[in-house]
Amino acid sequence: MKAVLAYSGGIDSTVLLYHLQAEGHKVRCLSVDYGQRHRRELDAAAAICRALGVEHRIADLSSIAPLLAGSALTSPEIEVPDGRYDPESMRATVVPNRNMLILSLVIAWAVSTKSDAVAYAAHSGDHAIYPDCRPAFIEAMREAARLCDWAPVKILTPFLSLSKGDIVAHGARLGAPFAKTWSCYRGGEKHCGTCATCIERREAFQRAGVADPTVYARPA
Amino acid sequence: MKAVLAYSGGIDSTVLLYHLQAEGHKVRCLSVDYGQRHRRELDAAAAICRALGVEHRIADLSSIAPLLAGSALTSPEIEVPDGRYDPESMRATVVPNRNMLILSLVIAWAVSTKSDAVAYAAHSGDHAIYPDCRPAFIEAMREAARLCDWAPVKILTPFLSLSKGDIVAHGARLGAPFAKTWSCYRGGEKHCGTCATCIERREAFQRAGVADPTVYARPA
Repeated sequence: MKAVLAYSGGIDSTVLLYHLQAEGHKVRCLSVDYGQRHRRELDAAAAICRALGVEHRIADLSSIAPLLAGSALTSPEIEVPDGRYDPESMRATVVPNRNMLILSLVIAWAVSTKSDAVAYAAHSGDHAIYPDCRPAFIEAMREAARLCDWAPVKILTPFLSLSKGDIVAHGARLGAPFAKTWSCYRGGEKHCGTCATCIERREAFQRAGVADPTVYARPA
Repeated sequence: MKAVLAYSGGIDSTVLLYHLQAEGHKVRCLSVDYGQRHRRELDAAAAICRALGVEHRIADLSSIAPLLAGSALTSPEIEVPDGRYDPESMRATVVPNRNMLILSLVIAWAVSTKSDAVAYAAHSGDHAIYPDCRPAFIEAMREAARLCDWAPVKILTPFLSLSKGDIVAHGARLGAPFAKTWSCYRGGEKHCGTCATCIERREAFQRAGVADPTVYARPA
C-alpha cells in the first residue's frame, strides 16, 4: 500500500514508520511546523527519514500560529508545566484542533500522490488526555477521509489500542532508533526530564523493560 | 452565537456572512491562501470585511501548495478549462482535500477564540461535482468537530439544500454587495465569462431574476 505518515519525530510515529516499512508499505512522511516553540522534533524527523531514504516534507504552517494561540506548545509566553499530565497541564499543551489539521494535510498529500492511506500514531495513553486522540474522533475522521475524494483514503491507526510502553517494546523489536527521537516539550539541548512528556517517555521504557537511551537533563 | 466563517470572497460565502449577521451572530472571517493562481478572491474578501467592520484573517498556506499539486486552481501549468462543469473540468479544478483543510483551520480558530460554531457555504449545486461538498462528508466533519475539543464546535451549513440561484435571491434580499465578490478561476481584470464558475455565476443571477452587476470580459 502507498501511505502518507503524519510524522512528528517522536517515539510513537517513529515506531509506526518502522512498522509500516516492515509490513512492506511504501511510505512518505509529512511533518507539520505549526509554530512549535522549538524545532527539535522536526529536526529529528528529518534525520530519521534521511537515514532511511524515505521522502519527507515539512508543511510550514508557522504563519498561522496566531490562529492556534493559547497553548504552551505554540505560545512562548505560556510556560511548559512540570510534572505528570493532569487536567490543568493537559489543557496547557493542547494545540487547538491540531490532529484534524494534521490529518487534513496528510490526507491532502495522499490524494495528491494517489496514495491509498494515511497513518497516524494515536495510542491509548492519549485518549484520556486529548479529545482529538480518542477512537470516536478518529472514526469520524475515518468516515470523512473515505468521502473526501473520488478515491477513498484509509486512515491507518494500528497503535490505537496500544499503550506507549507497548509501542516502545514493539519498536525495540523493529530496531527503531529511539536515541534519535525527540519528545520533550521544552526543546533544550537535552530532554528536560521533568515535563509531562519526558515523564511519560521515561516510564514507557521502564514498562517495556527496554533500556532508555535518552539523556535527561534531570534524573527521575 | 460566536462563529468563524470560512470566507472565500465569492458569492456563496458573502451571502452567508450577511445571513449570519442578519441572524445576530458575532462573526469572524477566515480566508485561506492555499497557493491559488490569483488573489482576486482574497482581496474581495478583505474589502468586504473591511466595509462591514468584521475581523478577517488570511491563513497563509501558500508554502504547502506543492502538497496540493494537480489542480488548475493551484498549478499554473494546468489550464483553467472553458465551458460548463463536466466530469473532466470538475477534476481539473479539485484542490486535494481542500474543504477538510479549510474546515480544520476555521475549527482551530473557533476553538482558540472559544467560538460556538463555524459556518461554511456548501450548497446543493456543488454536490454533484465535489465529493467534499456532499452532505455525507459534511456530516462526518460535523461529528469530528463535535468531538475535537472539550467544548464541541458546531458546523453551520444553512445553504446546504439551496441552489446557487436561491443564494443569489437570498443575498439580494439581504443587500449583499455582489459587485464586490469574485468567482472567476482566471483572476484577470474582469470575470472571464467563459470558465465553469463564471457560467455558473451568470446563470445564478438569471435564475434568481436578480440583475447581475458583474462585468464579464466576454458576453454570454
